[in-house]
Amino acid sequence: MDAVPHVVARFEDDLSHLKERLLAMGGEAEEQVRSAVRALSARDLSLAERVLAGDEPINRLHVEIDQRCFALLSRHQADATAVRVIVSGLKINSDLERIGDFAINIAEATFRYLQHPPVKPLIDIPRMADLAQGMLRDALNAYVRPDTGLAQRVLDRDDRLDGLKDQVFRELLSYMMQNPATVEPALDLVLISRHLERVGDHATNIAEDVIFMVSGRDVRHHRQEGGAPGD
Amino acid sequence: MDAVPHVVARFEDDLSHLKERLLAMGGEAEEQVRSAVRALSARDLSLAERVLAGDEPINRLHVEIDQRCFALLSRHQADATAVRVIVSGLKINSDLERIGDFAINIAEATFRYLQHPPVKPLIDIPRMADLAQGMLRDALNAYVRPDTGLAQRVLDRDDRLDGLKDQVFRELLSYMMQNPATVEPALDLVLISRHLERVGDHATNIAEDVIFMVSGRDVRHHRQEGGAPGD
Repeated sequence: MDAVPHVVARFEDDLSHLKERLLAMGGEAEEQVRSAVRALSARDLSLAERVLAGDEPINRLHVEIDQRCFALLSRHQADATAVRVIVSGLKINSDLERIGDFAINIAEATFRYLQHPPVKPLIDIPRMADLAQGMLRDALNAYVRPDTGLAQRVLDRDDRLDGLKDQVFRELLSYMMQNPATVEPALDLVLISRHLERVGDHATNIAEDVIFMVSGRDVRHHRQEGGAPGD
Repeated sequence: MDAVPHVVARFEDDLSHLKERLLAMGGEAEEQVRSAVRALSARDLSLAERVLAGDEPINRLHVEIDQRCFALLSRHQADATAVRVIVSGLKINSDLERIGDFAINIAEATFRYLQHPPVKPLIDIPRMADLAQGMLRDALNAYVRPDTGLAQRVLDRDDRLDGLKDQVFRELLSYMMQNPATVEPALDLVLISRHLERVGDHATNIAEDVIFMVSGRDVRHHRQEGGAPGD
């Protein structure tokens, strides 16, 4: 494309508007995860119900952002840098939508869990929630600045989340084996810990996309060599 | 871009090569899921280990296909139709990589499951496996032909998979509550059924991408209104 100045300026505007919409989507996804986790720790059934009913804004943004990316790729002869921004946008959009789904899954399991007396005081699951939410917040900050150092620090935290998930699993397994009455609610805690780990996985994906967007380096699958795959 | 004939021909070649590589990736993902499920039903520990060691081809294709899509978007002034093919390629690539991950997850749970005597004869899990694998095969066929009618029939099967998952869950829960010795292996069967349901979810995503690729219609989030979200 000839670099007609007003066309270039319009394209830049469109790109920064894309970024704004992705951040709005990130805010919605963060809020859904935060509420789902709070519903669990505060035993707040009505908050769990609000999360279950609250996925519409994320679904709308998911479709809207994909359309924006698609229009940007179709209308402009974008250079490699712009294509990286748009392709990263597509991927981050999909990760945020999945994170919204996991918030729903956490709220569903919480809703069932709250029908029973508590299995145990929750310690590691709130820790997992803090860790996963911190990873998501940092991944979004890394995207908006953009900051590959911060993105790298998100990647470094994924193993801790995985370790906590295994610890939660072993502990709940022993509760279930000792007391059949705990089987049903403990199973939901196992599922919640897995959903939180998946939130962290998708925050990791976003961080990887930020590194690709800024540097063009594809860091996926390299860190994981020799490690165990996650859930 | 001016439609210089040899450039257009080269672009068409690149697009059909992209399709070939995605089908190769689809074949690898199908094979990993098939082997993981066979390892479970045949109680074949060494096959489960081969699945665990076998994700390298998928990881390599994942990175390669993303690079191809990225290069196609950067180098050519693609029209809307071509952008749809490439963007769908990016998404299907990501879905196939996730399906490969679920095959690994199934093999991990199978590996643990096979350390115990069988909880029960497996009936619904092999049914779920057949259904999920059929959805994946049809989604890939819908992509290669392309055939939106076949893609639509993939979408229609997602609810059946969800229903089987709930049935498996309730049945295994009663085993676990009646006999603490079954808690550990039954839990792995619960996880396997959820991984299979997720394979079906991603086959559904691929079918939705095929419909978008061919028709430009975004059918995501429309079918699900009022329905329960999946795991």
